[in-house]
Amino acid sequence: VILFYSDIVENEQIFLTGEEHAHCTKVMRRAQGDTINVTDGKGNIYLCEITQSTRTQTTAKIREYQVSPPLSKRFAVGLSILKNPSRTEWFVEKAVEIGISDFYFYQSTRTEGKSINQPRLQKIIISAGKQSMNVIFPTIHFFSSFEPMLQSLSSIFEQRFIAHCNGVESHLITHLKKPNTKFLLIGPEGDFTDKEVSMALQYGFQEVSLGSSRLRSETAALVGLTAMHLSRM
Amino acid sequence: VILFYSDIVENEQIFLTGEEHAHCTKVMRRAQGDTINVTDGKGNIYLCEITQSTRTQTTAKIREYQVSPPLSKRFAVGLSILKNPSRTEWFVEKAVEIGISDFYFYQSTRTEGKSINQPRLQKIIISAGKQSMNVIFPTIHFFSSFEPMLQSLSSIFEQRFIAHCNGVESHLITHLKKPNTKFLLIGPEGDFTDKEVSMALQYGFQEVSLGSSRLRSETAALVGLTAMHLSRM
Repeated sequence: VILFYSDIVENEQIFLTGEEHAHCTKVMRRAQGDTINVTDGKGNIYLCEITQSTRTQTTAKIREYQVSPPLSKRFAVGLSILKNPSRTEWFVEKAVEIGISDFYFYQSTRTEGKSINQPRLQKIIISAGKQSMNVIFPTIHFFSSFEPMLQSLSSIFEQRFIAHCNGVESHLITHLKKPNTKFLLIGPEGDFTDKEVSMALQYGFQEVSLGSSRLRSETAALVGLTAMHLSRM
Repeated sequence: VILFYSDIVENEQIFLTGEEHAHCTKVMRRAQGDTINVTDGKGNIYLCEITQSTRTQTTAKIREYQVSPPLSKRFAVGLSILKNPSRTEWFVEKAVEIGISDFYFYQSTRTEGKSINQPRLQKIIISAGKQSMNVIFPTIHFFSSFEPMLQSLSSIFEQRFIAHCNGVESHLITHLKKPNTKFLLIGPEGDFTDKEVSMALQYGFQEVSLGSSRLRSETAALVGLTAMHLSRM
């Protein structure tokens, strides 16, 4: 199934613009009268018939649609901004495939990266979401300071974990419990400061390990996300 | 700890050449009299003192060494050659960080990739192995046909799994048992043919699922490898 993306839905019509329009008409050669599947990234898949295709826009009439139930599980990861944007990008792609509700990118004391390219990450989310048929696209959050993020997370996620390398023994997998909303905080390459760890503990985070290997931040994030999914099996 | 790599060890001396020599002298600026840590990728870490540094080679005298015990667990993954080499490369990097004993790259009916760049993958193994301190580097195997690979695997790995998307219900994680040698076979983007699946079953492979998400081959490989590690916790 080829899936297109658009969040412009009005009066039982859906509009593809920009790259999605180009992909639909130039790459996939879909024209007036053809049937296409479109997701809005919010859990809906529309079966539509193309009614008009201009140079800049595809217009399609919605014939049927399919609603995914809202996510019953909400698994999210916080990643300190990385120096190397391509590592962030692959993490985002893989996390969308595996299933993630929210990305939190943040700056802490030892963060080395300066910023994230949100439009670029959004494109990767759309492309990976279409490819994996995970049609409820995750949300990107950005925090330029640490404590406000901890505060905000505390009201959203029931189980909250901080993975760090400073003598934690028990593995994330042994801590995963019933709650449907889980958050895992991964530190920068130089790890959290002691102050940051104790701050997280004050906000009700549990300290966890991700095993004995020395993992890069983005690998740790992916291993942790996979563990959250596997604990449901 | 900065770790260098060399497999040239003779008479209590170790020799760095090529990129490792350049990294040691130009990037890290280590010269005669300095102490360095070197791994041979076979589980040994040597503490050495540089005795000579020429334009092309660093020579170091071994002062102490540390031997990692041989891997008690042997987890391996087979991946159909991918069209996109950069996806293979990141899989290799991440798998080394997480821990893997062997890579099997193979060609099957629906394989889209033509070949692997073994010297390039070897470099990635060295770099990820040094970074993650996983100092027993995995071996790369290549099979240009499917059945000889199955045959060879059967004599090496006690538990053997084939992950495919054609109606398998039970997740890999529910099948993982005691044996210390485990192998997971991942198909090409177009999946295995029915014939290939039944051939694998004849060679004692168990069919498994990796969850309900539609994962790219390299993502499936990483999720499966992570599951094998987590089942030990």
